[in-house]
Amino acid sequence: MTQDCTVLGIDPGSRITGWGVVREVSGVVTLVDCGTVRTAEPDMARRMGIIFRGVTDVITALRPDEAAVEEVFTARNPASALKLGQARGAALAACAVQDIAVHGYEPTKVKQAIVGVGRAEKQQVAFMVATILGVKKPSWAVDASDALAVALCHLTMRRYNRLARLNGGRL
Amino acid sequence: MTQDCTVLGIDPGSRITGWGVVREVSGVVTLVDCGTVRTAEPDMARRMGIIFRGVTDVITALRPDEAAVEEVFTARNPASALKLGQARGAALAACAVQDIAVHGYEPTKVKQAIVGVGRAEKQQVAFMVATILGVKKPSWAVDASDALAVALCHLTMRRYNRLARLNGGRL
Repeated sequence: MTQDCTVLGIDPGSRITGWGVVREVSGVVTLVDCGTVRTAEPDMARRMGIIFRGVTDVITALRPDEAAVEEVFTARNPASALKLGQARGAALAACAVQDIAVHGYEPTKVKQAIVGVGRAEKQQVAFMVATILGVKKPSWAVDASDALAVALCHLTMRRYNRLARLNGGRL
Repeated sequence: MTQDCTVLGIDPGSRITGWGVVREVSGVVTLVDCGTVRTAEPDMARRMGIIFRGVTDVITALRPDEAAVEEVFTARNPASALKLGQARGAALAACAVQDIAVHGYEPTKVKQAIVGVGRAEKQQVAFMVATILGVKKPSWAVDASDALAVALCHLTMRRYNRLARLNGGRL
């Protein structure tokens, strides 16, 4: 693992899947690009195809080294968990087929890495994502911002782990 | 839609995904092949990649015209719904990318089509699947049998709908 790294963050959803790519070069983090894959298509299988192709297109265009996604263990109910799971499955499959390792982070871990507290509000996270990336008036969608948050969280955890290794142990 | 049709049935699962391909030619239904995609891999993204590739391999080898999968709306809890959803997402994406339409059937509909009653036991369904396909001592896994059941259900519903259209209306 070199220090420089390009990370793809993904925020899967059955209607809107957010994605964001950030790059760290010599300790400086910059935004590469971000956006959303939207699936207005009523047919669930075709929706999964759109998510798979959308994530694949981002990977082939921007060539991230690694990917990060929020780990979700709970949902409002089994039906919404099933829908969210399907979108995650399509997005994860796209990464795996392109041989991109996916790192999962619990939502509190993402908030902690970005804002400093695990119970931060969504808006606080969005504000800090824009601040970290030096974007004054971000025009990106909230789903893209969430994807950028998990990508930035991964860069932070990666940095911590590297420092911990240099100090002889994992954090 | 011609009368002859090859159908891929899929029973997605995060550990074992069953698949079964059946063919109807001039009203006679035969087994083409069936099997399972097993994912012992602990990494969830890689598992999704294995399911996606496994289903893709079956499609490219056996060239089904259509696919069928059980619709699931409930699960024991959100965590298991999420896992099942992920496997479904990877399998559905594989079908969509190969341009295979996927038809969903509720579990009671599958049982009704195979056994005649919506509350049939799993073993009754397995027995009838083997009987319909003329296989005396089936050696296939239970997940493959479930996949064959939904594929056979789709052929039955397809036949009903064709008859209904001939009679001037959909059933």
